[in-house]
Amino acid sequence: MKVLVLGAGQLARMMSLASTHLGISVLAYDVGSKQVINPVTFEVKSTTLEQEVEQSYAITAEFEHIPEDVLNICQQSGKFFPGAESIATGGDRSKEKALLDNAHVPCAPYALITEKQAFINAIDELGLPLVIKTCQAGYDGKGQWRLKTPDDAEQIWSEMKDFLDSGTEAAPHSIIAEKMIPFDREVSIIGVRARDGQCKVYPLTENQHTNGVLTLSIAGKEKAAIQAQAESAFEKLATELNYVGVLAIEFFDVGGQLLVNEIAPRVHNSGHWTQQGAHTSQFENHMRAITGLPVGSTKLVRPTAMINVLGQPSIPYTVLGVQNCTSHWYGKESKPGRKMGHINVSADNLHELGERLAELAELLPEDDYPGVSVTSHALILN
Amino acid sequence: MKVLVLGAGQLARMMSLASTHLGISVLAYDVGSKQVINPVTFEVKSTTLEQEVEQSYAITAEFEHIPEDVLNICQQSGKFFPGAESIATGGDRSKEKALLDNAHVPCAPYALITEKQAFINAIDELGLPLVIKTCQAGYDGKGQWRLKTPDDAEQIWSEMKDFLDSGTEAAPHSIIAEKMIPFDREVSIIGVRARDGQCKVYPLTENQHTNGVLTLSIAGKEKAAIQAQAESAFEKLATELNYVGVLAIEFFDVGGQLLVNEIAPRVHNSGHWTQQGAHTSQFENHMRAITGLPVGSTKLVRPTAMINVLGQPSIPYTVLGVQNCTSHWYGKESKPGRKMGHINVSADNLHELGERLAELAELLPEDDYPGVSVTSHALILN
Repeated sequence: MKVLVLGAGQLARMMSLASTHLGISVLAYDVGSKQVINPVTFEVKSTTLEQEVEQSYAITAEFEHIPEDVLNICQQSGKFFPGAESIATGGDRSKEKALLDNAHVPCAPYALITEKQAFINAIDELGLPLVIKTCQAGYDGKGQWRLKTPDDAEQIWSEMKDFLDSGTEAAPHSIIAEKMIPFDREVSIIGVRARDGQCKVYPLTENQHTNGVLTLSIAGKEKAAIQAQAESAFEKLATELNYVGVLAIEFFDVGGQLLVNEIAPRVHNSGHWTQQGAHTSQFENHMRAITGLPVGSTKLVRPTAMINVLGQPSIPYTVLGVQNCTSHWYGKESKPGRKMGHINVSADNLHELGERLAELAELLPEDDYPGVSVTSHALILN
Repeated sequence: MKVLVLGAGQLARMMSLASTHLGISVLAYDVGSKQVINPVTFEVKSTTLEQEVEQSYAITAEFEHIPEDVLNICQQSGKFFPGAESIATGGDRSKEKALLDNAHVPCAPYALITEKQAFINAIDELGLPLVIKTCQAGYDGKGQWRLKTPDDAEQIWSEMKDFLDSGTEAAPHSIIAEKMIPFDREVSIIGVRARDGQCKVYPLTENQHTNGVLTLSIAGKEKAAIQAQAESAFEKLATELNYVGVLAIEFFDVGGQLLVNEIAPRVHNSGHWTQQGAHTSQFENHMRAITGLPVGSTKLVRPTAMINVLGQPSIPYTVLGVQNCTSHWYGKESKPGRKMGHINVSADNLHELGERLAELAELLPEDDYPGVSVTSHALILN
């Protein structure tokens, strides 16, 4: 059974590695180079997108910002999951907010901005500080502003205007201004929806970001009430989108109330812990869902933490000496800040997980791997 | 880090899939066709054995019956683990028995036979019934006889003589006659020995064979005393061989006493459950050991059963609907009796594992998948 993935990065790679045993063979289409490649060996194939679409049993994507012509070819094949609408929703904050409103899933108060008066009104109505985000493109903290005092409004507006003006009639640009809500922490839920509508949801994950990029996730420490909130949001959104595959939802936790930050219509960095901490990984479950196979258990097997490896030339092999720890290397060329791999570590309980993280903190410099030491202390004391 | 595997079957394939995330890339050398291939994609490479030996960081094998010239090239590189002696020991029962004697690890009383008088003596000294096995070549029940009454001795001797006569001076043939000990069951231990001599051993596995071929394994139901016996045997044998990598030892359980049946100097079918039931699979641990990386935890995560898929054209996709079940398909052409794949199923306890097997028994015809139903009942009642 052949599956084509749009995008040829680590997510396509891990989808391949997690589904070969099911008899699925994966190729990836790199939308930049317009080449078909094997995402594990990086070997370039001589086939075209159209040929692979024709030969594939199912098609999916590892990211949201896919050129419209590519998206159209895939959508027209009838084999594309989660489908062009879901991908478009994940790639455009204005569509995402409309989805949240339609599905009655709460997020921070927001305003859509396409011209200056709307910006002025948003400052009045929402109040400062505001988080301002471009609706199209932009990821990992790029294309965002924080407006803290009215004095900065003009400067920020000029940058916002540049973005709005760079849209076209066919692809207009817009901006979302959100009330900055003081939140306790960021969490995310990863779930899978099968072709028949069945939803299975993994345990909530607590995420730490550094400079807008995910650096550490922990699964297995959440209470039932907050898990139920997240599962309810997942089911509403996945059902509203008639979604097939793995969907990720990021939340702000505000005193135990979850407000959606953003959704990602794909396997997600904050779900990488499922490779060692759940029976069926998010990658295997995504592949099962899009090919119409029964989806697997999303239950936690053991509390698990994931540490991102950003911009490093390699992962210290010594981490493999820590009990229940394994490393995932993506085989990419190292660049500053680039996601190069991740480290998963599991334990029988949260206290033990804290001890494992303390061992890892000894091996991983704080500057390169922020938060490992602090998190280990918090888990050990808890 | 490149690793070359001698043999291009499912074991090489699973070694590749289990170590790509560590940054290891695997190629396989098919000793039959003398081709270098990717054991996952089956793509044939244009390189030679010598070139791949030169470029590899480590070399290993997925089976014991490797042509001597190939073995020599690999051994001379200094990168071959577990090494030619271990491979030769696994491929020759006379060497295997000598190893057991040297390491003081018990097996059934036996006699080495190279001519007729030794056969007559063995019948006298060991008594009937006897299990008679060729020392060289032969696997999965082939090259074996059972001598139950003296009347059959002449007929069996004539077949034994054919085998002995087909040896050469450089590669003489021999035969082992073993006293047939009534045993309660067959179990095996899989363990890994690192380059520094550290041993880690998985929980004992109970195995069921049908027509001499493994059909079902269960891990997670053994008591500490018998586990300790098996671990002791592993450490003695692995140390005696100065072994590096995963080594499998099959035993007969005779009233709680373990007698070695045979050893396999490689990852082993009875260790496939480790893919879902242990933190680090036997495949990942073998690759870690031979490349000098720290070996991972061999602890049981959850009781797990493995069901072999023999000669089937596919695995019923419905098995994926059973909780905590996944399937492993090797991508080979189907032939009667051929190992085509396996099914792993895990549970939180043995009773639940029995229930899962009962569900699988409904989906898997008894003739094709013997023992699933009986085993499920035994686990549920226990």
